[in-house]
Amino acid sequence: MLSATPRTTLGRSKERGSTDRADLYDVLDSGLICHLGVVVDGCPMVVPTGYGRLGDTLYLHGSTGARSLRAADGGEVCVTVTHLDGVVLARSIFHHSVNYRSAIVYGRARLVTDPDEQMAGLRALSERLAPGQWDYVRRPNRKELAATAVLALSLEEASVKTRRGGPSEEEEDYALPVWAGVLPLVTAWGAPEPDPMLPEGIDPPVHILHRE
Amino acid sequence: MLSATPRTTLGRSKERGSTDRADLYDVLDSGLICHLGVVVDGCPMVVPTGYGRLGDTLYLHGSTGARSLRAADGGEVCVTVTHLDGVVLARSIFHHSVNYRSAIVYGRARLVTDPDEQMAGLRALSERLAPGQWDYVRRPNRKELAATAVLALSLEEASVKTRRGGPSEEEEDYALPVWAGVLPLVTAWGAPEPDPMLPEGIDPPVHILHRE
Repeated sequence: MLSATPRTTLGRSKERGSTDRADLYDVLDSGLICHLGVVVDGCPMVVPTGYGRLGDTLYLHGSTGARSLRAADGGEVCVTVTHLDGVVLARSIFHHSVNYRSAIVYGRARLVTDPDEQMAGLRALSERLAPGQWDYVRRPNRKELAATAVLALSLEEASVKTRRGGPSEEEEDYALPVWAGVLPLVTAWGAPEPDPMLPEGIDPPVHILHRE
Repeated sequence: MLSATPRTTLGRSKERGSTDRADLYDVLDSGLICHLGVVVDGCPMVVPTGYGRLGDTLYLHGSTGARSLRAADGGEVCVTVTHLDGVVLARSIFHHSVNYRSAIVYGRARLVTDPDEQMAGLRALSERLAPGQWDYVRRPNRKELAATAVLALSLEEASVKTRRGGPSEEEEDYALPVWAGVLPLVTAWGAPEPDPMLPEGIDPPVHILHRE
């Protein structure tokens, strides 16, 4: 179950909320990037960045010099992951909507200092963005680890919101001679584009070629 | 030209920055949703939401009761639009990256009170999410307008960041027997799914059927 704190309790459209922890994992485990919110000098700052999940901990990373990471270290953050599944076309402008799945995680981020946890966090990040690569390419060396800040965020305070299905309409609008429904948005992997520096004879492995 | 304020001046990867206003418009005009960051009780809150652009003003909207909109009204906000174009697969974990185009807009949001600007803002929002629908379906009536808060945000303070192309590698890693390149991410519209309540004989119009 997900916790119910004031900020994770939906104020509106409660029917779109989920309190099931499995739904949270589903949204997080099918995303590639999140939007990380921090407060800098009293103002919000939202940056797109990678993430990974291990159990009930979310890992973020970045250069030790990045402004957003410095603000996130020890401070309150908000991490949002959104999947846009389609545009809901209604018979009135007012009832237009989108189908989506989103997760919002609140908490205080902690800089990971334990080397084993740093490596595990980076592995989780890497496997989220590019599954199979951790065991295929060169892993981080000491110098690279020193340049990479890894932050941990507990999934204790989180909310999940989902919208599916066709439009909700005003009763009288059903008589309008207007098409209504959903225009789905489909995301897929294209064909791998080899690096021009690649020597001949090295083909993309199965985990890249047939990525789901 | 885009302004150069401390928070829109890139601290890192300066070569990924753009100061061209046309690039800002490009990123904004090809997105469907943004991530709106606000500060609530000193903590960041990031929510996905629709937006529209008219000249150098960005419009956001929501229920007059929505928490994020109430926090945004008159307060500092950050609006981020991100397009993920692919995953950059390098010969080392460290140099894995993503190809993307993103825009970050900072400023103080203003609640739109002029009815003409409210309608123009809603039209911009609607045409961004579902082009062609404004002239096709029923427009907002007085009651719906009263329930909809429209916020305006100047595009005065904004930054654009883009990454394209293959991996950058450590010189010695080019000798590794590892495939490297880009796995493109492709987003497309699926076939329109009609509302079950739709009577027979109403087909989707061209602007829905052949949406780009």
